[in-house]
Amino acid sequence: MAVYTEVGETELFEFMAGYDIGQVLSYKGIAEGVENSNFLLRTTGGTFILTLYEKRVNAGDLPYFLGLMQYLAGHGLSCPLPVTRRDGETLGELAGRPAAIFTFLEGMGARRPMPAHCRAVGEAMARLHAIGQGFPMHRANGLSMPTWRPLFQSCPDRVDTVEAGLSREILSELDHLEARWPTGLPAGVIHADLFTDNVFFLAGDLSGIIDFYFACNDLLAYDIAITLCAWCFEPDGSFNLTKGAALLSGYQSVRPLEEAEVAALPLLCRGAAMRFLLTRLYDWLTVPDGSFVTKKDPREYLRKLRFHRTVASAGEYGYTAIGETG
Amino acid sequence: MAVYTEVGETELFEFMAGYDIGQVLSYKGIAEGVENSNFLLRTTGGTFILTLYEKRVNAGDLPYFLGLMQYLAGHGLSCPLPVTRRDGETLGELAGRPAAIFTFLEGMGARRPMPAHCRAVGEAMARLHAIGQGFPMHRANGLSMPTWRPLFQSCPDRVDTVEAGLSREILSELDHLEARWPTGLPAGVIHADLFTDNVFFLAGDLSGIIDFYFACNDLLAYDIAITLCAWCFEPDGSFNLTKGAALLSGYQSVRPLEEAEVAALPLLCRGAAMRFLLTRLYDWLTVPDGSFVTKKDPREYLRKLRFHRTVASAGEYGYTAIGETG
Repeated sequence: MAVYTEVGETELFEFMAGYDIGQVLSYKGIAEGVENSNFLLRTTGGTFILTLYEKRVNAGDLPYFLGLMQYLAGHGLSCPLPVTRRDGETLGELAGRPAAIFTFLEGMGARRPMPAHCRAVGEAMARLHAIGQGFPMHRANGLSMPTWRPLFQSCPDRVDTVEAGLSREILSELDHLEARWPTGLPAGVIHADLFTDNVFFLAGDLSGIIDFYFACNDLLAYDIAITLCAWCFEPDGSFNLTKGAALLSGYQSVRPLEEAEVAALPLLCRGAAMRFLLTRLYDWLTVPDGSFVTKKDPREYLRKLRFHRTVASAGEYGYTAIGETG
Repeated sequence: MAVYTEVGETELFEFMAGYDIGQVLSYKGIAEGVENSNFLLRTTGGTFILTLYEKRVNAGDLPYFLGLMQYLAGHGLSCPLPVTRRDGETLGELAGRPAAIFTFLEGMGARRPMPAHCRAVGEAMARLHAIGQGFPMHRANGLSMPTWRPLFQSCPDRVDTVEAGLSREILSELDHLEARWPTGLPAGVIHADLFTDNVFFLAGDLSGIIDFYFACNDLLAYDIAITLCAWCFEPDGSFNLTKGAALLSGYQSVRPLEEAEVAALPLLCRGAAMRFLLTRLYDWLTVPDGSFVTKKDPREYLRKLRFHRTVASAGEYGYTAIGETG
């Protein structure tokens, strides 16, 4: 939640000369996005989001992210559309940073998702996966399973201050995940960060998906696992079976899961919980207090991980095969 | 530049039920305003700013600020207009804080003001002063001259770490200001914080004034002094006489200065520089590093203060009496 870069009027006007979207009326830094600086831009042509990519984003990945948003929007998935410049590109440079302008997406994140929201996000994720099958670019997942152990090893030597015995628990879990991580499941483009603040709703209907800066090619069911973790737990840490069932049935209304995916789901959920446990743990121990980045408690994902360890089959997430009655 | 308070959708919708401005389409925290949390709010009725007043603003002052904006807008000065609720009030409560909604003002602060901007801000300030004469409410200046010595005394005992000899210089200046501060000059509503980011321009024309949260009743010419300090110095610390002349002549095109005001201007400028030197000094020494508040270097205003000490008469700011040629 920050604006890292100040943008002067003169340089903004120069940048805008590369576009065909009218005269600037106003621009205001908005508190959205951890990795980038975002501005709400109003022109005589409409309302837009101006994004400046800061150091945390690898500039080499931007063509994948922007190309993907363009592709998804072009195939009917509602997401911010990068505006094409006069020179045909979607990426420019502003204040010494790569920068792009996007159409503005109305709507609000569902801070307290209900089962209907979970069904809608499941359905939209399946559409993203289906459309993504035709997207020609490829990006490896920078936070895939093999990166977790090195990420854990790079954490400062104070992991057990977060919770006694945590190091041992993580190492044992990593052993388990590395030994059993599935191969051969359907793969393709995944969002990889479908948290509630990245899915907008308007009058109860899903109005679009934002923030594709973790998107990559990986197992489709792993995206489901991330999303189950993000949407279907209650604030008290309990898993809400009704929400899980809604999410999975929404997903299957577009793309029915294969048997091997269903079988792998508990393990993939353990992996998803591990991935967010580790990145939060790393930030928790390394980001200085009082910095602009709001640190999230890693223990939330430790509790989720422990829940997933108790799950024997996808039925405990609310899964029912298509045609069965739940 | 911050959003201090998170606003949930449910509580926003409840709050919005008190207004007649349509359904919420989106709201985004914006990085504007040091004292409050601000959101850019889009509804089916248009675009608005939603402001939550945080602890730094005295809730008892809000009727003055909101009433003033309403009065000024109603008398033709372009500024955000507080939207009236169904119950006839402009102030409500959201997330446990006083909250109000304002019309959205297009435009951008002039980050590098030219003489034409200075003329325009002088003219708009004079209109504010003229219209303000009819505003019936009264608010004492919380940062008036008599408050400066106590403010200085409340600074931590490290003032001279900012610059050697600074304490002595400030105390001697306070003696001077307290002995000579003018009385009997025209008084009324002043903005008291007319910095460049609080005055919006659109295609070169002044489109409006924002941020009335320091507005109060005080000497009108003291507002001119604050504004001269904020608009007419170059980044290298030199005073730009052309800009000063433009600001003063813009002002006088609406309200010619009285002789006593002209004579007092150098002293009022020393006072204005002192007021910002002291508040910046206090923040510099008390606000922790890395906090959300961006600390501004007090030495900028120390240099301005020293310049004003060299000024013998208002002519050195570019003042010419009406009818004279400069």
